[in-house]
Amino acid sequence: MSYAPFLGVLGGMGPLASAQFMLRLTLLTPAERDQDHLPALLWSDPRVPDRTAARLSGGEDPLPWLLRGIRGLEAAGCGAIAIPCNTAHGWYEGMAEATRLPILHIVDAAAEELARQGIPGGCIGVMGTAGTLAMRLYQQRLEHRGYQCIVPEEAEMQALVSPGIALVKSNRVAESFPLLAEAARNLKNRGAAAVVLGCTEIPLGIQAGPAATAIGLPLVDTIDALALAALRWAGR
Amino acid sequence: MSYAPFLGVLGGMGPLASAQFMLRLTLLTPAERDQDHLPALLWSDPRVPDRTAARLSGGEDPLPWLLRGIRGLEAAGCGAIAIPCNTAHGWYEGMAEATRLPILHIVDAAAEELARQGIPGGCIGVMGTAGTLAMRLYQQRLEHRGYQCIVPEEAEMQALVSPGIALVKSNRVAESFPLLAEAARNLKNRGAAAVVLGCTEIPLGIQAGPAATAIGLPLVDTIDALALAALRWAGR
Repeated sequence: MSYAPFLGVLGGMGPLASAQFMLRLTLLTPAERDQDHLPALLWSDPRVPDRTAARLSGGEDPLPWLLRGIRGLEAAGCGAIAIPCNTAHGWYEGMAEATRLPILHIVDAAAEELARQGIPGGCIGVMGTAGTLAMRLYQQRLEHRGYQCIVPEEAEMQALVSPGIALVKSNRVAESFPLLAEAARNLKNRGAAAVVLGCTEIPLGIQAGPAATAIGLPLVDTIDALALAALRWAGR
Repeated sequence: MSYAPFLGVLGGMGPLASAQFMLRLTLLTPAERDQDHLPALLWSDPRVPDRTAARLSGGEDPLPWLLRGIRGLEAAGCGAIAIPCNTAHGWYEGMAEATRLPILHIVDAAAEELARQGIPGGCIGVMGTAGTLAMRLYQQRLEHRGYQCIVPEEAEMQALVSPGIALVKSNRVAESFPLLAEAARNLKNRGAAAVVLGCTEIPLGIQAGPAATAIGLPLVDTIDALALAALRWAGR
């Protein structure tokens, strides 16, 4: 019985996005049979306090909940941690300081996916929660790599992006498509060469409609980008 | 910080089926926001030795691997265990004796789903791995509840069901549909009032095509049935 390390997945934020991460991780793995796939442990705790509320309106701090999950993944023998929630990366430093395990950073994974799609720099649209955008998680890390980031305007956040994300979290996935697609199209019209779907609920909503024809520019699915980063970590 | 028990999911058999289980568990939960969903821990270890090979051709015993997963789920604070793999239930007694946690039985979940679909007894088709059918997991438990079970013939297993399952396990999901649909139709023609998809790879393949029109009788998806049983355990 070999004891190769598991991939630890700190999830539940939201639970549909982390289930989708497990699905995409499996489908993106070259495999002929069960035993070719990656051992992985998904800690799905949807009770982690809302990350955007914590950052923007004094809501409960999610860090103790995030650390509890990391402790559980460490104890089970994981070798690295992936977190399929962009906003939770606002607590990346606090998590990284608390564990010896490498934590794959979702923004770096998105940047690698932009490069893989042939977009080495230039103007990039970024959609995300109000918390992710306010913390400038993408702006800082992508501008460091030579991209300029544009984000939805405040009115678009309130009318399109935030309600779209909330619809996915309440299992009303199909209804979120027109809102999220309109926000992506607006970024294209303002000059974006690609749009990073920088909240793991957004690709779920975008996939519920004819995204490719409705939007017509490259989209970076941060669920897939993180799954591909995990496969690189595992040497697959 | 509340410490309500997690649902433990002993998965990876196969990994696509257990990811789909997490997805369906989420979508079947009445929820308005992340925090309404069930905390769950998925132990996805695809290296568990092949269950059918162990039962039919002297392959490595999967029980030590299954017990390792159960130990991990216990240590993390789970309150019950669901196993989205039908064939693994051939080791149900060995697992149940080794833990104080309740293990939801997938055949009981399927029987509850048959009843919910308005089929209280009569002739039922059961599709599954060669191991599941040889162990008579469904036949014994369903006949106890007043159903008669019919299963694919040996030639159908070799030409349709076993290759269909293997295609799903190698990520060739769409190709499995015609094989699995033909096997289900044959059971209908032999008098089945419904077909239980008694291997968690089979619903994945059946959903890849127009199952309802192509087959035309009630199907019991054992992934959904087990997810509903888990929600009942959690009082949702």
